[in-house]
Amino acid sequence: MEQKRTEIAQLGEFGLIDRISSKFPLQQPSSLKGIGDDAAVIDAGEDVLLLSTDMLIEGIHFDLSYMPLQHLGYKAVAVNVSDIAAMNGKPEQIVIGLAISNRFSVEAVDALYAGIKAACDNYKVDLVGGDTTASPSGLVISISVLGRTKKGNEVYRSGAQDKDIICVTGDLGGAYIGLQILEREKAVYLTNPEMQPELDNHEYAVGRQLKPEARMDIIYELADLNIKPTAMIDVSDGLASELFHISKSSGVGVRIFEDKIPIDENAYNTAVEFNLDPFTCALNGGEDYELLFTIKQSDFEKIKNHSDIHFIGYVHPDAKQNVMITKGENVVPLKAQGWEHF
Amino acid sequence: MEQKRTEIAQLGEFGLIDRISSKFPLQQPSSLKGIGDDAAVIDAGEDVLLLSTDMLIEGIHFDLSYMPLQHLGYKAVAVNVSDIAAMNGKPEQIVIGLAISNRFSVEAVDALYAGIKAACDNYKVDLVGGDTTASPSGLVISISVLGRTKKGNEVYRSGAQDKDIICVTGDLGGAYIGLQILEREKAVYLTNPEMQPELDNHEYAVGRQLKPEARMDIIYELADLNIKPTAMIDVSDGLASELFHISKSSGVGVRIFEDKIPIDENAYNTAVEFNLDPFTCALNGGEDYELLFTIKQSDFEKIKNHSDIHFIGYVHPDAKQNVMITKGENVVPLKAQGWEHF
Repeated sequence: MEQKRTEIAQLGEFGLIDRISSKFPLQQPSSLKGIGDDAAVIDAGEDVLLLSTDMLIEGIHFDLSYMPLQHLGYKAVAVNVSDIAAMNGKPEQIVIGLAISNRFSVEAVDALYAGIKAACDNYKVDLVGGDTTASPSGLVISISVLGRTKKGNEVYRSGAQDKDIICVTGDLGGAYIGLQILEREKAVYLTNPEMQPELDNHEYAVGRQLKPEARMDIIYELADLNIKPTAMIDVSDGLASELFHISKSSGVGVRIFEDKIPIDENAYNTAVEFNLDPFTCALNGGEDYELLFTIKQSDFEKIKNHSDIHFIGYVHPDAKQNVMITKGENVVPLKAQGWEHF
Repeated sequence: MEQKRTEIAQLGEFGLIDRISSKFPLQQPSSLKGIGDDAAVIDAGEDVLLLSTDMLIEGIHFDLSYMPLQHLGYKAVAVNVSDIAAMNGKPEQIVIGLAISNRFSVEAVDALYAGIKAACDNYKVDLVGGDTTASPSGLVISISVLGRTKKGNEVYRSGAQDKDIICVTGDLGGAYIGLQILEREKAVYLTNPEMQPELDNHEYAVGRQLKPEARMDIIYELADLNIKPTAMIDVSDGLASELFHISKSSGVGVRIFEDKIPIDENAYNTAVEFNLDPFTCALNGGEDYELLFTIKQSDFEKIKNHSDIHFIGYVHPDAKQNVMITKGENVVPLKAQGWEHF
């Protein structure tokens, strides 16, 4: 009898996650929220703990020909911390699973952990455990993070309501544009190893790719201002994809304005030089690790002059209408490409 | 200038862990215990949470030519649960990082998750999150587990005291012996694919390798009997290696009796057939996932007739004297080989 074979690419990452999660109903009373947000939420008395995991694979998520190991270590922690930030929590502990082949020396491992340590110091996170093993070929780094916040202070993707204002921090698209530059320079180098990399004027975008930061600063500022976002997610797969997550989880629609999407000027110019549309990079590029969140209108006054929070649109009741108003004032449906590794 | 290159094999897994952990002092008040036990211990009010992570890599930890995906999924959960058992906790949540190449179909992923689900149901663990990604070649599965117990009820490697009785559950060496059988059958098959595998009479050892169980049953029984072990660890790297961990962490020595080491009769015979010393398999084989623990003498009465707990020796004050009394009544120093993948 022939066995059925369905390719993973037919389902995609999100399809696969939906397929899996439908088979795993929660049974522990301490599991307050399972699959479907930036982190799981675990009961811990007056607090909730937040648990998330991210895996970075050589050849898929990073290329060591242009990603220094120290930066990789830093980034591996930062992307996990970003998931805790997106739940409105603060990170406290990480555990690291590391698989390394014998092409890596102890000095290489030291460089990786120097980056991990820099991130742990910066985000005040303790490394409390791990599993270190050999790998037949590439480097694999899997980090799980525990965060914490007062019970009731955690923010889900599902809380956005009609008329809420959609906010995004920092600027978008830079990390993707930086990746294009690094890939180009690698291709040039492979053709002619004598060539020096041309990274002048592109430092900003390259830095966004190689050394992303989790926006814990914003989480602390929002707390100081007594603002609890109604919904939040970090921008790891691109603005459009994250807007769809909020729309789907909250059962609302979003309306954003193209001219409000924050793009760094330098990254913008680089994108144009590469014949990339900067707005497409911002909408679908991913890896910026900024925070996308919604607030009640009544909270707007408190942050309207914040230099690093941008108001890009608003929430409306129709979950089927996720649209962008272009600079030419056309209303176009948002499309989420996200990242499809498969 | 030439850069120094030190091979990871020179340090070994434990050397590497020591090198890393010395650079990461704990700074969060909620981190009650970091690197150096079966799980980290996190403050959660009246309870402590236990956090551990394990990574399984194709070609290092498993071979899909004889490891069915369903068994792999089950084992990946069980080995994590075993770490929580070893802390005297009960497991509650897991998150899974999974990297799969496109040689795996959706049906293969389903088989893997069927095993994960069976383990989750058996151990009452919720799958609360994960990260699924492509892999350039092999399969990587990284699981982190959260467990829980009342504060003060957790058991460390460090609590063994003079005159405590050393106990081990189940039997040892079987998983290693099972691996040898599977490797032999694979070699035979590769030479002559017409050959049928000869697994008759070896089901026990093969089962120990392919479908290990975490000994949560023992944790529940000890709680019912009101016994809190003074020190505990799970047997993942072999009895000798685990005894050394308890010795080092507790600052005590151990004295065990060869003839008390529990070995399954069937596995014993198989080992002999393979020209392996069954006691060496038990001492250094690993992957049995039994529990090794120490109890106060005053608790002995309560479990002395337990059919699945074996009393293999006792603790004494000299941390430098870790010895075994052979069947010939010779006193030999214990040697820990453990698992060195590098």
